[in-house]
Amino acid sequence: MNYRIILKIVGRVIGIEAVFLLFPTVVSLIYHESVKGFLVAIAVAVAVSALVTALTRKHNSQFYAKEGFTSVALSWVCISLIGAIPFVVEGSIPSYVDALFETVSGFTTTGSSILAEIASLPRGILFWRSLTHWIGGMGILVFMMAVVPMSKEFSMYIMRAEVPGLEAGKLTAKIQHNSIVLYLIYIFLTVLETLILKVCGLSFYDALVHTFSTAGTGGFSVYNDSITSCSPAVQITISVFMMLFGINFNLYFLLLLRKFRSVFKNEELRCYLALIAFSTITIAFNIRKLCGSMGEAFRLAFFQVNAFSSTTGFSSADFDKWPTYSKMLLFLLMLIGSCAGSTAGGLKISRLMIVFKASVAEIKHMLHPRSINPIRLEGKSITKEILRGTIVYFSMLVIFILSGSLLLSLENKDLITSISSVATCISNVGPGFNLVGPTCNFGFFSAPSKLLLSVFMLMGRLELFPIVILFYPSTWKKRGQF
Amino acid sequence: MNYRIILKIVGRVIGIEAVFLLFPTVVSLIYHESVKGFLVAIAVAVAVSALVTALTRKHNSQFYAKEGFTSVALSWVCISLIGAIPFVVEGSIPSYVDALFETVSGFTTTGSSILAEIASLPRGILFWRSLTHWIGGMGILVFMMAVVPMSKEFSMYIMRAEVPGLEAGKLTAKIQHNSIVLYLIYIFLTVLETLILKVCGLSFYDALVHTFSTAGTGGFSVYNDSITSCSPAVQITISVFMMLFGINFNLYFLLLLRKFRSVFKNEELRCYLALIAFSTITIAFNIRKLCGSMGEAFRLAFFQVNAFSSTTGFSSADFDKWPTYSKMLLFLLMLIGSCAGSTAGGLKISRLMIVFKASVAEIKHMLHPRSINPIRLEGKSITKEILRGTIVYFSMLVIFILSGSLLLSLENKDLITSISSVATCISNVGPGFNLVGPTCNFGFFSAPSKLLLSVFMLMGRLELFPIVILFYPSTWKKRGQF
Repeated sequence: MNYRIILKIVGRVIGIEAVFLLFPTVVSLIYHESVKGFLVAIAVAVAVSALVTALTRKHNSQFYAKEGFTSVALSWVCISLIGAIPFVVEGSIPSYVDALFETVSGFTTTGSSILAEIASLPRGILFWRSLTHWIGGMGILVFMMAVVPMSKEFSMYIMRAEVPGLEAGKLTAKIQHNSIVLYLIYIFLTVLETLILKVCGLSFYDALVHTFSTAGTGGFSVYNDSITSCSPAVQITISVFMMLFGINFNLYFLLLLRKFRSVFKNEELRCYLALIAFSTITIAFNIRKLCGSMGEAFRLAFFQVNAFSSTTGFSSADFDKWPTYSKMLLFLLMLIGSCAGSTAGGLKISRLMIVFKASVAEIKHMLHPRSINPIRLEGKSITKEILRGTIVYFSMLVIFILSGSLLLSLENKDLITSISSVATCISNVGPGFNLVGPTCNFGFFSAPSKLLLSVFMLMGRLELFPIVILFYPSTWKKRGQF
Repeated sequence: MNYRIILKIVGRVIGIEAVFLLFPTVVSLIYHESVKGFLVAIAVAVAVSALVTALTRKHNSQFYAKEGFTSVALSWVCISLIGAIPFVVEGSIPSYVDALFETVSGFTTTGSSILAEIASLPRGILFWRSLTHWIGGMGILVFMMAVVPMSKEFSMYIMRAEVPGLEAGKLTAKIQHNSIVLYLIYIFLTVLETLILKVCGLSFYDALVHTFSTAGTGGFSVYNDSITSCSPAVQITISVFMMLFGINFNLYFLLLLRKFRSVFKNEELRCYLALIAFSTITIAFNIRKLCGSMGEAFRLAFFQVNAFSSTTGFSSADFDKWPTYSKMLLFLLMLIGSCAGSTAGGLKISRLMIVFKASVAEIKHMLHPRSINPIRLEGKSITKEILRGTIVYFSMLVIFILSGSLLLSLENKDLITSISSVATCISNVGPGFNLVGPTCNFGFFSAPSKLLLSVFMLMGRLELFPIVILFYPSTWKKRGQF
């Protein structure tokens, strides 16, 4: 293990966080609020970053998968530890564990909150809270690679660890270029949504913070009732953008290159849109008696389906009161998530498609033991290695959700609260059902449970391995001198 | 597809069922009850069997995996259809769908019941109800192979389809011999438990029917409150035998061969016993406040852990009122089940061990991409084929449970009722939580839901593929002339 290079990367990421912390500081100044919290956080970030940089001036360049995973995982832990400072110093969230939970929830684009009263908090604090979603959505290390040139090995391993389900192999040649393009698309969509929300009647501040939360598929709102009281126009705009941010960003890249055919023929996209259509229609019929009109039923269903499928987790209604079919389907959408290479969490549709195709291949194999049944996705065959990795990933996710639920059940809340808390955190959605439903929050959990859920949020955002590896003893063995 | 050979096997299995139906007829005669139901069922079975045998006198001997799976699946469907007749004719269960649910639940050793009032039913009917567990536990086709010599190909494919998780490969050489040995061990344990329960104070009839239910890991009782009102001695006896019937029968075979070392070193057995010990101890401490003494807590915990782990599903307390940790752990034990090659349902411990080892191998592979990490179980390496099959099986099980829960949620019962009904049926346990808890029954579900759950019980007992293949179009294509 090359400790120095990992420390160096973590130090650099913390430095970038210091820069990001300037934005809410400016917002606080505009609104004449205290900036003490942000200044303390910036001071800590700068000090840590400078210290680490000084310590790691000499280092060798050994950098493999292990170093890639570890540096990404530790970077995320560190930015959360520092990002929580303003909440505590400003007194918005007095307990540090609570603030840490909120910050991890922000960076991992989960959107689970421990806050019951949100609207009365300082605007700078709420701006930072939503900005963490925006930073976490595309990834802070991807941002670092966009602004600081790095060697190929670095970039490939970091990309693989931080970008959900992206096939890093294809991108190695021009990762820096790609990181820039990804961020430019991200910024373009962010500006577009902000403008539309402004036109729909939100203030510029409200439009911006909600766009941050949508873009990162996070789900923090500055209103106490999430998006419930917003106008239908705002709700529909946010629904559409949640859907857009759940799409693989490579497809937007292809659109820019005018490769419309490849986009249109993308299997994962088709499956994603079909799933949204199916869920919206069936849920709309399922909840029609609770709504004033069929149109309202469709609007609420479309909103909530996209909120769960994109793992944003906004709510425009108390879906916990909906019929069981709707809740069960939302729960499944939560687990599935949306497309690989998007800012969303969950299993990802392409993984589910591979698991499904592997099952069909297994049935064919059972029927005709000597037949060979290659599995193809997006016109390419899936290698045995990717296939095995995908099914193992699926199995690990299930095992983690179930064992996490067992640990959380020690809180002695009901089964649905226990299971849906873990599922919503590992899928980076936000709300769950019963005690963690859309009108509730995670404040009642004990500190150990909040830390456990924070680990699950990180596991979900970084797709298990980077975090799991931290707990795997052989990771910490030295490879050689450093 | 060789239809004739499949029909021939189904016909023979129905003939064997007719013989089994003689036992409850004798019981009814002893207790001076009506035997009309059994006579009608026997008449139907004999008629169908004779007709099918006459129709399939000429057949070719093409018999492959496809024919093996299909004949096993159809045999199980047919014996359930005929086995339900006595309940309806005697008026014990007026609705045929209800009776079918109860019979499928019996043969698949699930033990979910639609009956609220059990104790007042005729003794012959209750004898048949529990006997279906005993028949289904070891498998009616395995029984057929024990009494009727068959060709190697037949036996291998049928064994593979009917015996849970058994590695059929090793047994091909002497399947008939093995079927006989398996049944002899089964009969020996059955006699032993009956005697001990008799000594513990149960009547011979009660001892016998509860032994049937334990041996098959089924769970039907003749008391309305399952085993709750029985003496501690009876409860402990049944606990121990539930545990014994959850062990791979091949290990008893090895005991007979005096290969104690192999038994002692069996990884799956050790894991099984460790899981039982861990669950019993933690649940006992979790429920101690609800019990009179620590001893009682341990007894109830030990009973319920074995009831869920062996997928028997008896209850000795209203565990639905236990703290969330206990319920969550019981739910997990339900999904896991016990050892391969036992009469129990669920995923099976060895499969979970393979999934777990595959996950560790995947982590190692992530850390050291060029390393080779073979997976070993019971001292042998797991082939890539078995590994892929096992993880796909795990994934399919999860997908079936989730999609089944979605379908069942159309009943608009709560989420826990929906999910636990499907999970308990596909794991062949019996009771679930909330509306299908230990003091409740499945009677309130609509007919389509009962049929859906029946399909899930069959899927669980036959380990997915035989039933799934019935719904797979290419199964029904003709291979050639017949």
